[in-house]
Amino acid sequence: MALKSWEIEANKSKEVLAKSTPKQWLVPEDKLPSAETLNVADFARQSGILSGKEVSITEMTATALVAKMEKGELTAEEVVVAFLKRATIGQQLLNFATEFMADEAIARAKELDAYYEKTGKLVGPLHGIPISVKEHVGLKGRICHTGYVAWIKNIATEDALLVQLLEKAGAVFHVRTNEPQSLMHLDCNNNITGMTVNPYNRKLSPGGSSGGEGASMGFKCAPLGIGTDIGGSIRGPAAFNGAYGFRPTALRMPYDGINLAGDGQESIRCVVGPLAAAGVDDLELFQRAVIDQEPWEIETSLAPLPWKRVAPGKEFTVGILWDDGIVHPHPPITRGLQYAKKKLEAAGIKVVDWEPFKHDLGWDIVSTLYFPDVAETQRAILAESGEPVLPLTEWAFNYAKPKPLTVTENWEYNVKREKYRAAYHALMKARGVDYILSPTFVGVAPELGTSQYWNYTAIWNILDQPCVVFPTGLVQDPTIDKVEEAYVPRNKQDEREFKKYVPERFVGAPIALQLTGKHFRDEETIAAAKVVAEIVQS
Amino acid sequence: MALKSWEIEANKSKEVLAKSTPKQWLVPEDKLPSAETLNVADFARQSGILSGKEVSITEMTATALVAKMEKGELTAEEVVVAFLKRATIGQQLLNFATEFMADEAIARAKELDAYYEKTGKLVGPLHGIPISVKEHVGLKGRICHTGYVAWIKNIATEDALLVQLLEKAGAVFHVRTNEPQSLMHLDCNNNITGMTVNPYNRKLSPGGSSGGEGASMGFKCAPLGIGTDIGGSIRGPAAFNGAYGFRPTALRMPYDGINLAGDGQESIRCVVGPLAAAGVDDLELFQRAVIDQEPWEIETSLAPLPWKRVAPGKEFTVGILWDDGIVHPHPPITRGLQYAKKKLEAAGIKVVDWEPFKHDLGWDIVSTLYFPDVAETQRAILAESGEPVLPLTEWAFNYAKPKPLTVTENWEYNVKREKYRAAYHALMKARGVDYILSPTFVGVAPELGTSQYWNYTAIWNILDQPCVVFPTGLVQDPTIDKVEEAYVPRNKQDEREFKKYVPERFVGAPIALQLTGKHFRDEETIAAAKVVAEIVQS
Repeated sequence: MALKSWEIEANKSKEVLAKSTPKQWLVPEDKLPSAETLNVADFARQSGILSGKEVSITEMTATALVAKMEKGELTAEEVVVAFLKRATIGQQLLNFATEFMADEAIARAKELDAYYEKTGKLVGPLHGIPISVKEHVGLKGRICHTGYVAWIKNIATEDALLVQLLEKAGAVFHVRTNEPQSLMHLDCNNNITGMTVNPYNRKLSPGGSSGGEGASMGFKCAPLGIGTDIGGSIRGPAAFNGAYGFRPTALRMPYDGINLAGDGQESIRCVVGPLAAAGVDDLELFQRAVIDQEPWEIETSLAPLPWKRVAPGKEFTVGILWDDGIVHPHPPITRGLQYAKKKLEAAGIKVVDWEPFKHDLGWDIVSTLYFPDVAETQRAILAESGEPVLPLTEWAFNYAKPKPLTVTENWEYNVKREKYRAAYHALMKARGVDYILSPTFVGVAPELGTSQYWNYTAIWNILDQPCVVFPTGLVQDPTIDKVEEAYVPRNKQDEREFKKYVPERFVGAPIALQLTGKHFRDEETIAAAKVVAEIVQS
Repeated sequence: MALKSWEIEANKSKEVLAKSTPKQWLVPEDKLPSAETLNVADFARQSGILSGKEVSITEMTATALVAKMEKGELTAEEVVVAFLKRATIGQQLLNFATEFMADEAIARAKELDAYYEKTGKLVGPLHGIPISVKEHVGLKGRICHTGYVAWIKNIATEDALLVQLLEKAGAVFHVRTNEPQSLMHLDCNNNITGMTVNPYNRKLSPGGSSGGEGASMGFKCAPLGIGTDIGGSIRGPAAFNGAYGFRPTALRMPYDGINLAGDGQESIRCVVGPLAAAGVDDLELFQRAVIDQEPWEIETSLAPLPWKRVAPGKEFTVGILWDDGIVHPHPPITRGLQYAKKKLEAAGIKVVDWEPFKHDLGWDIVSTLYFPDVAETQRAILAESGEPVLPLTEWAFNYAKPKPLTVTENWEYNVKREKYRAAYHALMKARGVDYILSPTFVGVAPELGTSQYWNYTAIWNILDQPCVVFPTGLVQDPTIDKVEEAYVPRNKQDEREFKKYVPERFVGAPIALQLTGKHFRDEETIAAAKVVAEIVQS
């Protein structure tokens, strides 16, 4: 059968991936785990491709790697090669990448090593750190399709500002990562690269839209990754893959050169931020390396707030959001919260319950503002190529109101948003709660193609509060995390999500939590998350 | 003839003004200057109502007054009464007020004095300083009509956040001031209070939309006033009345509780800021007193940027914008710029020419974004009462594109705006220019009802750069500021504005200039303006 024109176009992108994948580090087919092997997170150790030293390099934080490079104990080339090897194997197992940039990365690492040789100094705070990059973050001269077949023709004319700044800080970009069609799934499938899967359980989703990044972190293909988030797209992937993620407050991180349908939509802003494989420290390192370069001098919409150095302390109050009152979390998530509460209290942190405040209103606002044009912008791009519209794309587009908003109706939603945001902030102050510890999602990583309820993350997008996601160290266990037989769902979506929880299907999925701080308190939130994560994981 | 229903409604507001005007300080009709007396700016001195001490109080800066109150050399009551007297006379001559609040102001002043008596301390940095308040800034329990007859029914349920913070800082509110219908005139006329005139020449406009504030400053009815600005509404009035005005960068000053049609419109933001009668110092005092209270803790959309203390220095470069390339400034304005250039150079300030960058593009963006709904929001409010639509209201509404923008078309303009803003910022850096000195308006104060070209101020609204307006100390003089007979207008609006310049009509009008800094460099801009104004006025 003849290929359709969109398939021919999609193949161009597939070819880029196929050609760029480093063949020398591929595990022979017969040495790969069988399709029935669900948890492959540790396979790199047994792959025969990485040396013991290389395995150990890929399991360190960026912070530790930089320290070792500063002392001359590691070279940038060793670091980059180790992660490239791991990423190549990760690709075989998870289909997380859209393009490798191995030659360029190694050449850059050699330059960094030469600089260090000559000067005895590092280029910057991210010297030699490989960073995986979500596909829609522009890289000069490369395809930037944002999950749309029609956009495969887009070739970025320059690197995104964030990429430029990270590069100045010494970072190396070695692999670009997958994202779902339209970017509006908490899942990772499109008509170009196809479906990315979760390293902890390949029948589960790595989340989305930064799903390739989630898998990259979970498999440790890079110590740091660049994700974007307008409803949970950094945090879902971080949580589902046992990794770390940070959603900054809007207008702090440079966004120029990131390609998204609906540019100029400012009512609910997409933000860019880091995912990290191995620790909260690296989230801080990434933010600091970028913001210390004063990106507001180039991207003038940003707030000119220097990155503050905040010393971690234990003098704060955590409010636990057990349930948002709309959709009840699955048992492993509740277990994670109980576990965290006990550990935090034992460590002397003040913990109280957090009663959610109008999360249904928040969802009405955020979901309306995603597609005030009834997703006509996105549908036009899909129609241009004729590619099939995936079910989760339709699902997200249906969040929109039946008719396009007029400009004045959009203004009314802006007003609602501002009032809600101010009221939530005031409530946190009134209740004396500094940080809210909550689920990141209704459950652990969902089954592929089933992710439908976003409001455990999207609520913080509309409130524009900074959030850190971290793994508790626990994983789902069907023998412990049983169905709550007595639970009576409170509404249809609650029932839908309740029924999705079949314990056996989620074996080994990481249990992660989300810590949310106040609007613009990004530094404090990361500092607190470091303390909280260390206590919970100890 | 029976009154129309809108007239009956308008009379309610007129009655508030009539009843609240302090009768004891009115100048007898026969002692008032004749209608032919155009310049009444100094009439308070000859009015017989103010003592010599009171005259001197009303001619000091707020900064100086606070210092005297701190030393116990003046009481708040003396200060407030002096300005109330002057404001009462100002009202007789200029029709600048919508409501007096004399009893409340005096009661508050007495409280402040009692506090000082008891503690030896001031309540805050604005202790005892009378501030006039533009009408649409909400004051609890009072009409807040925003220049619309239909909105006379609006009674504010609480003080605007800015008012609350100023009050905590010790300010006293004694008079509310007039504004034009729809707030979109650089002039000051409506169907409620009628036309406000300019104290320096009563045939001329005080500007708008903060026109009542402009007159209040020009006549020294208060040392400080609250204005708002989305196209020049603080700066026109400051310039035309020989006063000082500051347009802050957006998202620095609290805006909650200020009533404007089209709430939630965020593409081009209206900002609130100070006008001052006597000096740049007072602009800084006002900003500091407000921002030191961290308004972002309540109004969460604000950028959490503390007010920096910037020491004035002379190490900066001023670029002079002689002409925006669209409408040629009138001779007195060009004379003001030449005069300033000479003085600045003599004082050792580096001065270069500033070639305007696409001010026509800027105007296309800002004028489109004023009324993306073709002013339907405003027209509906006007239709509600049936009040006549004033010619300058129609003029402004006609800035809109012929058809309403869709939400996606609005996004496209947001993108244009961001690109233009970033490019202008980059150009200032590339050219090494720290501040741009320019006209505030095509001419000095325009004749009543004739103000049509806004782009000498509106350009900085779309670029969101902070601006200080200050008087040069010069005034229009028909014997010097002659028509440029040889000038050939470059387009229709240039011709229209060129023809408006009939030298004899502008006698005595102050010549002011505008100093513009970089986005978010509010503190630096005020500090530089202090240096520049002092040099120019010396």
